[in-house]
Amino acid sequence: MRFLGISIFLILFTFAFANEDFNTHRPLIVEFFENSEPHLKRTLHLECTSWRFAVEANNLSPWKIIPQECADYVRQYITGGAYKMEIDRVSTEAGAFAESMKLGEDGKDVWIFDVDETLLSNLPYYSQHGYGLEVFDSVEFDKWVEKGEAPAIGSSLKLYQDVMRLGFKVFLLTGRSERHRIVTVENLMNAGFQDWDKLILRGSEDHGKSATIYKSEKRNEMVEEGLRIVGNSGDQWSDLLGSSASIRSFKLPNPMYYIP
Amino acid sequence: MRFLGISIFLILFTFAFANEDFNTHRPLIVEFFENSEPHLKRTLHLECTSWRFAVEANNLSPWKIIPQECADYVRQYITGGAYKMEIDRVSTEAGAFAESMKLGEDGKDVWIFDVDETLLSNLPYYSQHGYGLEVFDSVEFDKWVEKGEAPAIGSSLKLYQDVMRLGFKVFLLTGRSERHRIVTVENLMNAGFQDWDKLILRGSEDHGKSATIYKSEKRNEMVEEGLRIVGNSGDQWSDLLGSSASIRSFKLPNPMYYIP
Repeated sequence: MRFLGISIFLILFTFAFANEDFNTHRPLIVEFFENSEPHLKRTLHLECTSWRFAVEANNLSPWKIIPQECADYVRQYITGGAYKMEIDRVSTEAGAFAESMKLGEDGKDVWIFDVDETLLSNLPYYSQHGYGLEVFDSVEFDKWVEKGEAPAIGSSLKLYQDVMRLGFKVFLLTGRSERHRIVTVENLMNAGFQDWDKLILRGSEDHGKSATIYKSEKRNEMVEEGLRIVGNSGDQWSDLLGSSASIRSFKLPNPMYYIP
Repeated sequence: MRFLGISIFLILFTFAFANEDFNTHRPLIVEFFENSEPHLKRTLHLECTSWRFAVEANNLSPWKIIPQECADYVRQYITGGAYKMEIDRVSTEAGAFAESMKLGEDGKDVWIFDVDETLLSNLPYYSQHGYGLEVFDSVEFDKWVEKGEAPAIGSSLKLYQDVMRLGFKVFLLTGRSERHRIVTVENLMNAGFQDWDKLILRGSEDHGKSATIYKSEKRNEMVEEGLRIVGNSGDQWSDLLGSSASIRSFKLPNPMYYIP
């Protein structure tokens, strides 16, 4: 009977999902699952994993915060080793692909990297803000950015050095604003990144554009210049999708926030 | 010390990955992890989860079989409820998107569905073949297809009925060959699918094309006819990527096989 009750409840909840505003917090399972029995905790774990898969496979509509019930799950994922393992695997796959490519002799093969949560980690900031549980606060985040203290993501630094050694041009394409250029350069260099060909930030003409549009336009310009975009690494699908896409793109995990 | 030893081992293994042939089986962790201690089992579980994430985020090169060490993990994922939960979530998200769209009055809004592992489940077949642990055997699989007994994926059937009710044209676009048309129609109808607008199978002119090219060409034809491809549901990225992509696409999970 209990199982039936739970099932009916979940079914009703599924219907409740369908009509909610896409941009609001959409609960997966109600709060009473907290402090409940092991099999319910297991169900919650499965629900949060399935939510995270939906994030990484780009199946979700734009979302602003992580599901509240998954707060513990996301923190555990980030701090317990799984996040690092997944990030490392993406770099390993990207590195193997980069090695496999025969580059032209004209020096026009490009690898694009996003910056935040791709080359640099903002975990020191997000650890203080519930790992995505709080609505993004651009004022607070800008203060963090201006400190210039974001550490490198280790396996991304290795990939960066590898593609550079292989002869790729390296373009950094970030959603950060031009007004953060100086601190971003300093931060990147202090974290070990050097010798990139171009660092592209959002100029005044780019404000108000979605990241997908802004980044597509910048890639279009590269292609118009005769460059070949071979690889692209980013933690958001808006880094990777759109026009002038790379031959292969590499999606780093990010369960903390979504940028359309 | 033990931790250091394991770490060094994993690092060496990571390097070993980088040089292996993309199309061969690439072990994640060596066999001695089987029958080993709980924390090593936990590491294996994390490794297999990170592999599955790489699959679903399209970070892997084409692969032919699942990693042998993940055989138990994949079977447990498929049979233990997680696979169903994830599939159901994809349909819920897709349904909410479909509901949110305002369709034109000209009846030219289309939703595309793949067939295998999207509308129909071949789990009765794959359960007899290690859930992806054996190299795909087209002769054996064709015998299964010719039985016409693949069951419907429940939440996909619901989505199918919902988009049809909303007024979408429904196109089924499958990698199955034209010679399986009759049994595919019978199987679909017996499983509850009805009234689709078009069922597109691979004709003789499509053999040898990658699924991405074949499906892009068929979508191009739809767009040339003036149709608008609003949604697309498939378990392979080759169902979803390429030209004439849908406004939004929905990737069903599939850790068992990869079609380029």
